[in-house]
Amino acid sequence: MRVLVTGAAGFIGSSLTDRLLSLGHTVIGVDNLSTGQPEFLVNAKENPLFTLREHDLLDLDALVESAAGVDLAVHFAANADVRFGPDHPRRDLEQNIIATWNVLEAMRRNGVKRIAFSSTGSVYGESPIIPTPEDAPFPVQTSLYGASKVSAEGLISAYCESFGFEGFIYRFVSILGERYTHGHVLDFYKSLAADPSRLRVLGNGKQRKSYLYVQDCLDAILLTLDKAKDKVNLFNLGTNEYCQVTDSIGWITRHLGVNPQLDFTGGDRGWIGDNPFIFLETKKVRALGWEPKLTIQQAVIKTVEYLQQNPWVADRR
Amino acid sequence: MRVLVTGAAGFIGSSLTDRLLSLGHTVIGVDNLSTGQPEFLVNAKENPLFTLREHDLLDLDALVESAAGVDLAVHFAANADVRFGPDHPRRDLEQNIIATWNVLEAMRRNGVKRIAFSSTGSVYGESPIIPTPEDAPFPVQTSLYGASKVSAEGLISAYCESFGFEGFIYRFVSILGERYTHGHVLDFYKSLAADPSRLRVLGNGKQRKSYLYVQDCLDAILLTLDKAKDKVNLFNLGTNEYCQVTDSIGWITRHLGVNPQLDFTGGDRGWIGDNPFIFLETKKVRALGWEPKLTIQQAVIKTVEYLQQNPWVADRR
Repeated sequence: MRVLVTGAAGFIGSSLTDRLLSLGHTVIGVDNLSTGQPEFLVNAKENPLFTLREHDLLDLDALVESAAGVDLAVHFAANADVRFGPDHPRRDLEQNIIATWNVLEAMRRNGVKRIAFSSTGSVYGESPIIPTPEDAPFPVQTSLYGASKVSAEGLISAYCESFGFEGFIYRFVSILGERYTHGHVLDFYKSLAADPSRLRVLGNGKQRKSYLYVQDCLDAILLTLDKAKDKVNLFNLGTNEYCQVTDSIGWITRHLGVNPQLDFTGGDRGWIGDNPFIFLETKKVRALGWEPKLTIQQAVIKTVEYLQQNPWVADRR
Repeated sequence: MRVLVTGAAGFIGSSLTDRLLSLGHTVIGVDNLSTGQPEFLVNAKENPLFTLREHDLLDLDALVESAAGVDLAVHFAANADVRFGPDHPRRDLEQNIIATWNVLEAMRRNGVKRIAFSSTGSVYGESPIIPTPEDAPFPVQTSLYGASKVSAEGLISAYCESFGFEGFIYRFVSILGERYTHGHVLDFYKSLAADPSRLRVLGNGKQRKSYLYVQDCLDAILLTLDKAKDKVNLFNLGTNEYCQVTDSIGWITRHLGVNPQLDFTGGDRGWIGDNPFIFLETKKVRALGWEPKLTIQQAVIKTVEYLQQNPWVADRR
């Protein structure tokens, strides 16, 4: 299979690229290296089945060339910055909405019909139903990031209906593990490296969130691509558990052997649009035979170990 | 009140413009006249409270000027062509998604905080719940038009959360009445004017749809703008009834005194993305004291009478 992977130098994109290559697939990786890390593609670049095409997804002509002859487009490139969305609202429009439209058009112009897309549990806004199933009540968006992802989901679904595409849409919780470059574990790790005696925590620390280990996430994606047969296949991906921010802080600090004083900024939200309780119902993907191998605690520790072994990640970001 | 109305030369936009002017409000109308009709603004243009600014919503600089000092932005401009979406997929992206983002940005840069938006019952896709309430299960989009509107809704809601905006989102059924320029009544009217002996009907004629008279629609908008107080105020707008395509054909042909042979193209859908049953639950807006004055049948007849009295509409479109 010849696969286009957008965001191929990103956390999840590069992990999927390696997995696809190990299975013998050909991968055309696209990345503008705005947040992707060339280091993540060191192994892939040694593989003759891999090609990196460095361009922005707003460059439709380049994208049409990149998508030529592929059997599947995996669209993982995104502005994944939820928290600072209000600081640069056009970024979500361009990098998440227009870029997705460009991917769909590049596919259509090449006769490519299958697309897998990384959406997010943030599309549920503050759901009245927790754990939140795929058919939760029609949500009201609370972040530019969530709005841009629900927009991309809609465009993909409309292309499935209009042009005979087959869509795979994954609503992720936050993903952890090797190559993690973004999120609370990195923020805490960097802060504790600079000053292990104190830790500033956004909100009251009681926000409840769910997380998933990146390799478990990839297992679910590969399984559903094989087994799900609807026109639009929508799956929540997450663990069967959630933790509080303070749980995660406990695991991180014990692993690092530090004992900081916690300074809470207060309130039940860490930032505008922060959802104080994210926990997704994952019965649908489990019914296909998938289950995650790591708990949230194991995934957090795995992430800290990765950051310890790869100090350049914390230095760079 | 100083109101920005985008799509001011359109069917609903011009009707609202006249209503706002009659209430003594100042209206800054924006229209690129791509589908808007200058004839609809003949009365407005005689009113010193009205200004027409002719520009595209993709021109952000012009839009920022247009939005200066307004108290409310009514964003009704859109590519409203559902049926031919697949023929020009970029149009929904540009005219419905990017244009909405531009309206939001023009507001933000001017400190304007209130927005009213014309969404559509099409955002529900093919809902499993009929009549479909505002909090129906998270839908899968079936048309580029619906996808572009759910995208715009999401951006508006995210701006409400991120920047303290107050949003009014109206999910319309199809609107009928004076200045109607688009849809099945016009299509049938034109066809019967050309040849009253036959009528080609897309699908099997059993599609069930709901409709609303334009003045009833405006009543609901003005009432909710006054009474609804949430950050994001979402309302279905429609009648408490639906009709089959063949019902509507019966009313139209009896009014015109013709008796065509009906040629059905067959199938339960008229076109790709056509929803065979649209009927919205309107309890939420009714609870505020609104109810429509015209039945669907009365609204269809009113529309035919308008087309008879204004032959240029059928000639032009």
